[in-house]
Amino acid sequence: MKQLFVIKIGGNVIDNPLALQRFLKDFSSVKSLKILVHGGGKIATEVGNRLGVEAKMVDGRRITDQSMLEVVTMVYGGLVNKNIVALLQSYQCNAIGLTGADGNIMPAVKRKVEKIDYGFVGDVDGSKFNISGIKLFVGHGMVPVIAPLTHDGYGTMLNTNADTIASSLAVTLSGEYETRLVYCFEKRGVLASVEDDNSVIHEISFARYQELKSTGIISRGMIPKMDNSFDAIKAGVKSVTICHSEELLSSLNDSSFGTTLKW
Amino acid sequence: MKQLFVIKIGGNVIDNPLALQRFLKDFSSVKSLKILVHGGGKIATEVGNRLGVEAKMVDGRRITDQSMLEVVTMVYGGLVNKNIVALLQSYQCNAIGLTGADGNIMPAVKRKVEKIDYGFVGDVDGSKFNISGIKLFVGHGMVPVIAPLTHDGYGTMLNTNADTIASSLAVTLSGEYETRLVYCFEKRGVLASVEDDNSVIHEISFARYQELKSTGIISRGMIPKMDNSFDAIKAGVKSVTICHSEELLSSLNDSSFGTTLKW
Repeated sequence: MKQLFVIKIGGNVIDNPLALQRFLKDFSSVKSLKILVHGGGKIATEVGNRLGVEAKMVDGRRITDQSMLEVVTMVYGGLVNKNIVALLQSYQCNAIGLTGADGNIMPAVKRKVEKIDYGFVGDVDGSKFNISGIKLFVGHGMVPVIAPLTHDGYGTMLNTNADTIASSLAVTLSGEYETRLVYCFEKRGVLASVEDDNSVIHEISFARYQELKSTGIISRGMIPKMDNSFDAIKAGVKSVTICHSEELLSSLNDSSFGTTLKW
Repeated sequence: MKQLFVIKIGGNVIDNPLALQRFLKDFSSVKSLKILVHGGGKIATEVGNRLGVEAKMVDGRRITDQSMLEVVTMVYGGLVNKNIVALLQSYQCNAIGLTGADGNIMPAVKRKVEKIDYGFVGDVDGSKFNISGIKLFVGHGMVPVIAPLTHDGYGTMLNTNADTIASSLAVTLSGEYETRLVYCFEKRGVLASVEDDNSVIHEISFARYQELKSTGIISRGMIPKMDNSFDAIKAGVKSVTICHSEELLSSLNDSSFGTTLKW
């Protein structure tokens, strides 16, 4: 099976034009097949503010009402996605910007209202993804650049977490490719000591993860991300790498950069 | 050669949600291969106003400065394009939203500053279009939905007239398909008398067009559109139809609706 990287770039980098350009230049030089999933960044909140659309939060969770859905559709699907695509094209990377509605690649279900009404938020089920569409693009030298938006199949776009999209894609495509999931963010990897940016733990097996958790070395904030990563590995993803957006290439090629999770 | 419709839908319909839905439902039931090109509508101006970005005009022509480029990238590439794609998907039409940057399908050149600096406006040359990308989508049952945006190849998106995109696509694809270009707008076709909506001239040959021009029956405003249409026909497009957005299906199937231009 051919190797395929599903690389997720977080909001902090999106918000910083120079960091974004550096990252995209590195991304464009990754030789394997690849997909980029991008977060939204603070631009949606900022554009929302300027439009008089307030970011609504309930219990620390963001709510996507009709006005905010319009803002994220504009900002994630238009401004951020097309800016990334145009930049990648300038680095000779044949990017194609997509949301879940395009080619129906990622249908989703609007989250049910239980305690909280999250509004227009879509939950995805990777088994419903349109693999043949994604394979068509990837197989013809195109690099999908995926915005954190899906659709409900009834004409409405939905806001969807970019981390979830990235891991669902990596899992779903693992039947077709040897998929490697990469989260790029503003830290150099999983740190043994939160204060020390150089305390990166470079390799973590599932057994080692249990140890690190029980000794309290892995901090609370990282646990959901790590749990999701090992879930993806159990479901077929070859490895998960967590690295700094400026160390993408080093982290993919050199085990002394970033953190790589393997079974 | 297979028949392919390049259908352009204008701004007035984009601005009217019910008219847009009706049109998209009809569009989705067109049996031949097809591409939709959409204009922007007044939403960009409206969103621009709310963001404090003023629509700048010089000699009646719109200027796209950096702030307005961000607005049109958001609105045309995000809000309008994804809304159309999601609606078409709900009508079982496998739409894929694209700008000229996506798959590099329509590279463009930023318009040179002569008397007027139009700003970030892209002029297209159909011979530079990435036909193989478009054929790939169309050949695999996808329906391209094209926003009036291109890119310069150096990382910058550009604003481009939707009519020009539609006719350039129809001409460029005429080597691969029997292309028919359709402009949908708010009139029922080319009118013999501007005040009478029922005075549609249903068929106009190039010879008849010369007559209609010399007798003053075709009004000034229509002349550039008609000239461009006959240029497209000369360059290989089989026919150009001008019709009301509510009469798309009738106009494609019944010669007593809309205006069809043929050599």
